[in-house]
Order: sequence, then structure tokens, then C-alpha cells
Amino acid sequence: MYKINHTTTNELSRVQEKITKELASEKIIQDIYEYIFQSKGKKTRALIALLASQSKKLKPLKRIELASIIELLHTATLVHDDVVDQSKLRRGEKSVNQVWNNSYSVLMGDFIYSKAFMLMMKLDRPAILKELAGATNDIARGEIIQLNLFENYLHLDLDGLLKVSYLKTGRLFEAAAKTGAMLADSSKADVKSFGLLGKTLGIAFQIQDDILDYESLHINTGKPALQDFQEGKITFPLFYALKHSANDDQKFLLEHLGKKKLTKTIKNRVFNLVRSDMPMKCSQTLLDSYISKAKKSLEKVNHHSCYNEMLNLIMFSSQRKS
Amino acid sequence: MYKINHTTTNELSRVQEKITKELASEKIIQDIYEYIFQSKGKKTRALIALLASQSKKLKPLKRIELASIIELLHTATLVHDDVVDQSKLRRGEKSVNQVWNNSYSVLMGDFIYSKAFMLMMKLDRPAILKELAGATNDIARGEIIQLNLFENYLHLDLDGLLKVSYLKTGRLFEAAAKTGAMLADSSKADVKSFGLLGKTLGIAFQIQDDILDYESLHINTGKPALQDFQEGKITFPLFYALKHSANDDQKFLLEHLGKKKLTKTIKNRVFNLVRSDMPMKCSQTLLDSYISKAKKSLEKVNHHSCYNEMLNLIMFSSQRKS
Repeated sequence: MYKINHTTTNELSRVQEKITKELASEKIIQDIYEYIFQSKGKKTRALIALLASQSKKLKPLKRIELASIIELLHTATLVHDDVVDQSKLRRGEKSVNQVWNNSYSVLMGDFIYSKAFMLMMKLDRPAILKELAGATNDIARGEIIQLNLFENYLHLDLDGLLKVSYLKTGRLFEAAAKTGAMLADSSKADVKSFGLLGKTLGIAFQIQDDILDYESLHINTGKPALQDFQEGKITFPLFYALKHSANDDQKFLLEHLGKKKLTKTIKNRVFNLVRSDMPMKCSQTLLDSYISKAKKSLEKVNHHSCYNEMLNLIMFSSQRKS
Repeated sequence: MYKINHTTTNELSRVQEKITKELASEKIIQDIYEYIFQSKGKKTRALIALLASQSKKLKPLKRIELASIIELLHTATLVHDDVVDQSKLRRGEKSVNQVWNNSYSVLMGDFIYSKAFMLMMKLDRPAILKELAGATNDIARGEIIQLNLFENYLHLDLDGLLKVSYLKTGRLFEAAAKTGAMLADSSKADVKSFGLLGKTLGIAFQIQDDILDYESLHINTGKPALQDFQEGKITFPLFYALKHSANDDQKFLLEHLGKKKLTKTIKNRVFNLVRSDMPMKCSQTLLDSYISKAKKSLEKVNHHSCYNEMLNLIMFSSQRKS
């Protein structure tokens, strides 16, 4: 896990407390809500908001509130993603659509989204609300584009893939860092640096996530092996594999992409193709470049009290295995 | 359709224009978005906001914006409802999940929701935003409770059913009327009266909707016959039918409730049981009582310029067939 100091660990626990207090009075909603938040997740986005908002002038409570809002928004996207991806597992537990069904997932996602917006109203910071509403819209946009990538495979280039990664993952990292800095009334320049840090770290996070999908036959990452591939997602390693494969191999990959059932032999061949030298090297180089972009942005706010913790988070992101 | 004057008709067209301008740059999103908004719907909630916000001091543009936001929120719930209800038709056209699939419906719903919140930010009226965020949360809450009604059938009473109708339908009617009045800087008393008008009219709207589900074998309401019944929804007429039926008939109804496939014979028996004297009489009495509550609230704002148009809307709601 992240190396963060005692105060931050404590603040993250308060985020968890705050979130689980946001209940409705109806038992069915309480049950699903508790089920969703019993698995605590890494809370990376909440952590970023907590770090970027560190300030002597600011009471911790406001920061906890902001971090909770961001964690709620993120969780709402996950609950909806389970429907979109027809996932059976989330954070190692059965997903809501498995325990209840798709209908409950759709509506609980809406419930959590709107709860986040209700809490934002209490924050009483219009510029922060604007940033988070925009981020929420961009996430949905990114995911719709991603659904459509496969069909437009022939026109797909690295920029297109980076755009999707930015929208669906980088955008909320960016908003978390930016709104954290905004809450602390940081200078315009610092808000900008934190935003760029979040954005590039988020994209790096997604690249690492994509790589892990092709590592999970061998190590336990908490996600089933080849999940992205079987959901039909063109991720960075697959993109590079398609680019650098012989025609036959390319055809083989495209033929089995998105198929729910794959034999062990097929899985192994997919695996060997994507985990070959070039795709892995290119993905790693791309990851490194975004990690170093994030570090560069962090250097611009090296006067900030969160510097060490944020640096640890960046370094962890380049090496994480789950 | 509603009897509304020329100015209001014109304003409703501007709402449609405003909504369809809120596009993203990606073709796939444009396509789905245009598909959703090509069928214009009745825009009852937008109309209520337009009427309640009439004021000489207020520029029409702000009112159009508010009405557009409310219509967007409503449409987002419809797009998600299609997944929840596994609907094949919406407003007489194939639903988004039929033309594309559930994933697109979930994400387009999120896209439209967050677009609505982005537009709210531009309105720059925190109290209005708070009301609409709360309403969005209540709608999701109401729908989750509704999903769960069947299981709790034995404990279901009229109050429980009225609560669901308020949350899933009345709440946005209430918010539309209230925020309309708030936008026009109406007195606290007027905002309250408009809120109550919206709430009771919304519940009446839902009761009439429920009744129409059992009329549609005979007349064209735009919805397939017995849709609510086949989705497993306990609505007002069914509630009264269960209450006033002999044991055998009650058992028969519960046995077939929520079944996707029903023979013509079964449909006819369901129909005859629910359309019998008592259920229809009780539903109609309940509808009348909410219509008269709405009229009573309207009388409290009889000085308002929208009085005649609102009265027409209330009268229409008690008689509408689609």
C-alpha cells in the first residue's frame, strides 16, 4: 500500500466513516450501500484530494468532505461499470449486479451520484462543483467512446487511446488534485500544477491497470485474468500487440477479443502475443513517460507539505501489482 | 395536448432547441443523443417549470435554461429506466438499449445527468441546485423501493404506495414547480404552494399512468398493454384489485405478476380482475382527490399569471389517455 503518514491514514479512515454515514432510511438501500462500501478499496482519488488540499488555514473536516464526495463519484462509476462490463467481481467481492441485479446497480449508482452532488452543495464552493460536474460528464463520455473503440479499430491511434484513458481515469484524478488545491485556496499556478499532476498520474494509473490485465495469469492482482480482453477492451498492451504482430496473429487477437469464453489454449496464445517483447516494452515506456510527467508537475509544487507523500504515491503507481 | 398559450408553446420549442444543442463532439454520443431527443415527449415537467417561473422581472432565457435542466434530468431517468425495466419501447420508438445496448443506456444516462448538473452551475442559483440534486436522489430512492415492493407485498399499504409515487414521479414535479417559483424570486408562501401543487399533480399523474396500464388493451396509450404488470410493478389499480379480490383471484394475480410471457387468456383474466368495479372506483377516487389537492394549491397562487394554463394542465392530467 501507499506510504502515507499517520495523519493522512487517519483522514482516509474519516473519509470511510463519512461515506458510510450517508445512508437512506430504507433498509434495502442501507443493505446495498453497506455492501458496496464494506470493501474499502485503495481510495487513491480521495487520497489525492486529501494531499492536494493540505493547508494550515483549512479545517480537516472540509477536506474530508471533499475527499468523500470524490470517493462517492468514483464508486458510482464503478457500480455502473459493473453493468456496462457485466462484471461478476468487484474488489474481490461479488458485484452488486450479481448479489442483486442490474436494475439495483443502475439505481444505486444514480443514488450515489446524486448523494455526491448533494454533499457538494454543502461544500458551498461553486468552482469545485463545476469542476466535478464536468469530470463526471467526461468520465461517461470516455466510457462511451471506449465502447465504440472496437468498431473503429482501424482508425485507432495512440492519441485516441490516450484520450479515452484521460477521460475515463485521468479526468477524476485531475479533478481530485485540482479541487483539493482549490479548496485550500492555492495559487492559480499551483492549482494548474496539481491538475496536471493528477491528469498524468491518472493516465499512468490506467496504463499500469492495462498492463496488469495481462499479468494476472501469473500473479494475483485481484482481477480475473484477461478481463479487459474478454470484455472487448482495446487497452495499451493490446494496442501495441496488434500494431507489432504478424497479420495472422493480429487476426487471431481480433477474432477472440470480446469473447466471453476462451479455452486455455487460446488464452495462452493471447497471453504470449500480448506479453511479448515489443508490446510490453512500449507499454512500459509509455507508463514511464507519464510517471515522469507526473513527477515534473510535482516538482513545481515542491514547496507543498504533501510533497513526500505525493512522491511516494507516484512511485507506488509505477510499480503496483493490484 | 395541453391547452397552453402561444408564448408558452414557443418557450417549449426553445427548450427542445436548447437541449439538442447540448452535444458532445464525438459522433457516437451525438448519434445516441439525437436519437433520444428526436421524440419530443410531452415535456410536462419542463412546462411546469416554465409556468411557475413566469415573471415580468425575469428574462425568458433563464427560464428556458431551468426547464431544459429539468427535462434533461427527467430524460436521464427514462434512459436508465429502460435498463431497469428491460423496456423495448420508449415514446413509441425502440429504446436506446434496443438500438444499442444496456451499456450505452447506462452511460448515456450518466452523460445526460451530469450535463444537467453542468447547466445548473451556469444558472448560478445554489438553492435551486440543492433542490434538484435532492430530487434526483429521491427519484433513485423511490425506484429502488419500488423494485423491492413485490417482495414486501404483505406489508404494503396505500401510504407505502403513495410514498413511491411521490418519490419517483411527484418529487420532480414538485422540484420543477418549486424551482420555477424560486427562479422568479416568488415569496416563500408561493414557493411552498407551487411545491405542493407540483407534488400532488405528480402523484395524480402517476395514478393516471397506473390506470392507463390497464386500459391499453382497448385503447392506444403509446405503451404496450399490461407493461407495468409484466414488469412486476404493484401499481394503484393492482393494489386495490389484490385488496378486494377473493383469495383465488389474489393468488392468480400474484402468480402471474412480473411474468414476461402471458397467454391471451391470462391477460384477459388479469384485465378483468383489475378493471373490475372496486379497483377502478378506488383508483379513480384517489386520482380525483389528488387532482383536487393540486387545484387547492393552485387557488393559493390565483394571482399568478400562469393560473389559467396551470389549471388547464391539471384538468388535462385527470383525463389524459397517453
